[in-house]
Amino acid sequence: MDMNSTLPPAVTLQEVALRDGLQNEQTILTVEQKVWLVNALADCGLARIEVSSFVNPKVVPQMADAEEIWERMDRVEGVLYSALILDENGLNRAIRSAVPHVGIWVSASETHSKENSNKTIGESLNHALDLIERAKDAGMCVRAGVMCAFGCAYEGDVPVDRVAGVVRSMKAAGPDEISLADTAGMANPLQIDSTVRTVNDGIDGLPLSLHLHNTRGLGMVNVYAAILRGVTIFDSSLGGIGGCPFIKNASGNIATEDMTHMLKSIGIETGVDLERLVAVSLRFEEMLGKKLPAAITNLYGTTSWMSPVN
Amino acid sequence: MDMNSTLPPAVTLQEVALRDGLQNEQTILTVEQKVWLVNALADCGLARIEVSSFVNPKVVPQMADAEEIWERMDRVEGVLYSALILDENGLNRAIRSAVPHVGIWVSASETHSKENSNKTIGESLNHALDLIERAKDAGMCVRAGVMCAFGCAYEGDVPVDRVAGVVRSMKAAGPDEISLADTAGMANPLQIDSTVRTVNDGIDGLPLSLHLHNTRGLGMVNVYAAILRGVTIFDSSLGGIGGCPFIKNASGNIATEDMTHMLKSIGIETGVDLERLVAVSLRFEEMLGKKLPAAITNLYGTTSWMSPVN
Repeated sequence: MDMNSTLPPAVTLQEVALRDGLQNEQTILTVEQKVWLVNALADCGLARIEVSSFVNPKVVPQMADAEEIWERMDRVEGVLYSALILDENGLNRAIRSAVPHVGIWVSASETHSKENSNKTIGESLNHALDLIERAKDAGMCVRAGVMCAFGCAYEGDVPVDRVAGVVRSMKAAGPDEISLADTAGMANPLQIDSTVRTVNDGIDGLPLSLHLHNTRGLGMVNVYAAILRGVTIFDSSLGGIGGCPFIKNASGNIATEDMTHMLKSIGIETGVDLERLVAVSLRFEEMLGKKLPAAITNLYGTTSWMSPVN
Repeated sequence: MDMNSTLPPAVTLQEVALRDGLQNEQTILTVEQKVWLVNALADCGLARIEVSSFVNPKVVPQMADAEEIWERMDRVEGVLYSALILDENGLNRAIRSAVPHVGIWVSASETHSKENSNKTIGESLNHALDLIERAKDAGMCVRAGVMCAFGCAYEGDVPVDRVAGVVRSMKAAGPDEISLADTAGMANPLQIDSTVRTVNDGIDGLPLSLHLHNTRGLGMVNVYAAILRGVTIFDSSLGGIGGCPFIKNASGNIATEDMTHMLKSIGIETGVDLERLVAVSLRFEEMLGKKLPAAITNLYGTTSWMSPVN
């Protein structure tokens, strides 16, 4: 097999630092900082930006200002801005904020489902189907996602048949995209390969996206395995923040700058201006008051004589 | 292509923390600490351990105690212990220390060659050929390696034809193995794929090993691309220390524990006991007085409820 011939010309990145990233941070950014970041990320060429979740501000105070962000940020044509919602209240808030794209998720692990939402998988699924239909009725673009699709921190292995079953059920409600999340960072490249094949078999050409964590250092190799199997939509996070809040000291999401660099290095276009993105990431580090894990930004921020793009 | 069917059953790891790792550290470990580490690493099941270099102690004080380490460490049957040598003096010292396996390297970048050894590639090659022949005459097992095989921090791209040319020349001197190093951490998985194919075409079945850095976060994906192309010998470093001393803040080598975990996750045997290795890595962190980059050790060292092996 010629590897080159199997690669897609372009990949779509969904930037999740403002949601999956910030929800895990102690530092709460101001509305001004968040609005600046949304606009700066669009300016870098990101195709999709997850702006916030609409969840209970008592549980996730970092997202309490969702309405204000959506009100004040620019909406650049061609950029798909999205939000995560968990329930009817969140959906109604998203509708009022004219959110064009929502993510609705169900866990494939009973234990994680209980811990995360106090519902069984079945209850969570029924609830999600209703949300998906209502979001579609409201004219939104919908991503239907499965959490713990590659393993669970509580349960260990999660059978691919269960994942495929949840996907099939969600598909019936008419989402625009199916997504699989490696919530616990337990996926390996062979598993990515086989799970993507199995899930793709049941979704009749609906786009499949992956949300992969770098918990065990396998984020990038999992992306590569997925690309070889035809996946062209991935989540990533500015600076590499985020990940699973239940796992202490775990490195988080795949950094958007590392992802952009990797894809560029193998000739895959993302539309992202890497040098501009690194500058935004350095500013993001200043806002959070700490170094973030992204390898490319760590390099670029200290060795001005070396281009990050090779 | 079924990915599973293309994977080898086993991979050989060469542990390089004691050489490539420690030569970049400010902290100089004691002979006792180094001997403990060599023996502990053998006890973990590592197939190969690079114990030291034999170089000028004024230039690399961290390696000044090479003779003492080789004198005092155990030599476990089945483990291949090795050393790096740069010149006749180093070779003679290695012979006196009864070193069974030496690495002899030439850079494929003129600028790096000058900076690193004050020789042109041609001069360095002639010198290496002589060293390889002398080492073989002394009954040693020899790895002939090419530095900057995937790019150079000074020059940028390094043409694969030049790399293949250096390999062909070295092969004539009769080494037991050819090795390619991504000294500047610039390799990408497509380049790994094509370079491995090109180099393998010219070495008549001689084993090919890779020494990959994680400078831009691509270490593991490069390993995976190489495995898909049949490479079964890789260098890695306890805790992930080491890498290129010329690149500030660069993450270093691929961590042996992350590599072991990744290979195990896709069903490839290394012979390494991962839990034992993580314990040795935590001890190594204590010796160096700092956190090391290995994701698996960072996880395992803080979340005792979660097995590092999934």
